[in-house]
Amino acid sequence: MTDTTDTPVTVLGLGLMGQALAGAFLTAGHPTTVWNRTTSKANDLVADGASLAPSPGAAIAASPLTIVCLTDYVAVRDLLGGDDVDLAGATVINLTSGDSAQAREAARWAEQRGARYLDGAIMAVPPAIGTADAVILHSGPRPDFEAHEATLAALGTVTYLGPDHGLASLYDVAGLAMMWSVLNAWLQGTALLRTAGVDAVTYAPFARQLAAGVADWLPGYAEQIDAGSYPAEVSALETDVRAMTHLIEESEAVGVNAELPRLIKAMADRAIAAGRGREQYPVLIEEFSRPRNGPSRA
Amino acid sequence: MTDTTDTPVTVLGLGLMGQALAGAFLTAGHPTTVWNRTTSKANDLVADGASLAPSPGAAIAASPLTIVCLTDYVAVRDLLGGDDVDLAGATVINLTSGDSAQAREAARWAEQRGARYLDGAIMAVPPAIGTADAVILHSGPRPDFEAHEATLAALGTVTYLGPDHGLASLYDVAGLAMMWSVLNAWLQGTALLRTAGVDAVTYAPFARQLAAGVADWLPGYAEQIDAGSYPAEVSALETDVRAMTHLIEESEAVGVNAELPRLIKAMADRAIAAGRGREQYPVLIEEFSRPRNGPSRA
Repeated sequence: MTDTTDTPVTVLGLGLMGQALAGAFLTAGHPTTVWNRTTSKANDLVADGASLAPSPGAAIAASPLTIVCLTDYVAVRDLLGGDDVDLAGATVINLTSGDSAQAREAARWAEQRGARYLDGAIMAVPPAIGTADAVILHSGPRPDFEAHEATLAALGTVTYLGPDHGLASLYDVAGLAMMWSVLNAWLQGTALLRTAGVDAVTYAPFARQLAAGVADWLPGYAEQIDAGSYPAEVSALETDVRAMTHLIEESEAVGVNAELPRLIKAMADRAIAAGRGREQYPVLIEEFSRPRNGPSRA
Repeated sequence: MTDTTDTPVTVLGLGLMGQALAGAFLTAGHPTTVWNRTTSKANDLVADGASLAPSPGAAIAASPLTIVCLTDYVAVRDLLGGDDVDLAGATVINLTSGDSAQAREAARWAEQRGARYLDGAIMAVPPAIGTADAVILHSGPRPDFEAHEATLAALGTVTYLGPDHGLASLYDVAGLAMMWSVLNAWLQGTALLRTAGVDAVTYAPFARQLAAGVADWLPGYAEQIDAGSYPAEVSALETDVRAMTHLIEESEAVGVNAELPRLIKAMADRAIAAGRGREQYPVLIEEFSRPRNGPSRA
């Protein structure tokens, strides 16, 4: 089955994100049915041509594809488990924020009721929906994704990750960790440079180029992780740690926050204590893969 | 004055990095004088055409430009303060690792002795020296940098940052913070994905693209910092924090390390406690600019 812009779509949940999703489908020309507990949130969409369904069951029955975007997975279960809802034969894509365990559990639950179920994660803010900047991740059975890929393309850059329903959530939080880490490292550098009177705008291009440059190393470093072998081709961890000390000392000397530098060193110190000092940075995957409770001793 | 490949150069200190620097000058055709406390470290360079000076003073007198690369600033002072050394009229570029305060102090000291002094930082490992991948930062009087820029180009991608001698060290550590932060965020994501059986090599291109994408935001975000105004154009900090909680919970649920996620949230929580929850992420510069002692309470 190949979708066309004639393919009807239903959107359940009309918070800011749900409204943006429904709006993008309308803009792309899809007959769009919506439902929300508070009906007034549908007003603008109805004015733009959406159909307001009288119940969740009626909304799901109106289209071969239903997008769900609610506050949490409890709300999803309450809604899809309602008396008037028949999930048999429906395809449900759940873009509600949750964790990988919730996604897998929701998939089992929906599949037991005869639905085709995909879990998704939206890596974008509502205003970006409908543009290529909105990356939307999907996981679950590939045929169910491919059947609706053309329709989903109305929302942004849609990606299929694999059959495990938990993948969208895992990629999502992994991506968030990268986003905040790049921003925090840039803020650390900006704070350091401002002590010498350097504007944030002056430093930003340097930080940008460096982040992109380091990002280019990742595919090569990933090979070491998959091989479980970390020869110090470029630098050994025990050499890196001397520079980490330097970063901490400089941060302290100029009077900026040093918590991020201390965490960087604490992770490396633990790997060295575990005997990995002569290996290369990606060996730290062993520390990142291990939980550690209590406050940092950095 | 414009350097040519005929310009003589002196390199003091022949550790792995010093040897790489001298080797790059030789390869580029510069008459190269070297000196090291342990003479045998000069053997390979002498075989390649370098002149071994009998003393630091003789080495410095042999060339208009002297590159210093020792273990620390104490060693630099001991060497350049030796009885036989005359710094008057010499140009010294100190690439020894140190902090911004040491760089400024060394500059005052050397200038009092009649030297032209630049401080530098090498953002590369020894094998990269002589290639464009080796970024070498310089700070101090611009004319002294420009007089030798063509000669320095033999070492890699040379950059001038400004007249404050402390800048090379500050940019260097800021760059290190970015490097380790990108790597750690990638390791956090890789650890999360591996719990679902996703190979590091499969995840790496996603992480790479995301890091480069976030890096593109930095120049725009920097304008907010310089303006001291952080309107929530894209997202408010209090919204971001909900996703940070999600990152922590997912990390804990799948059993990987959660220290980096906790630090991310701790910084944001403090800004929210300071009343900045409705502002945008770069408002965190205020937290990064403030020291905080003791262990993290995250």
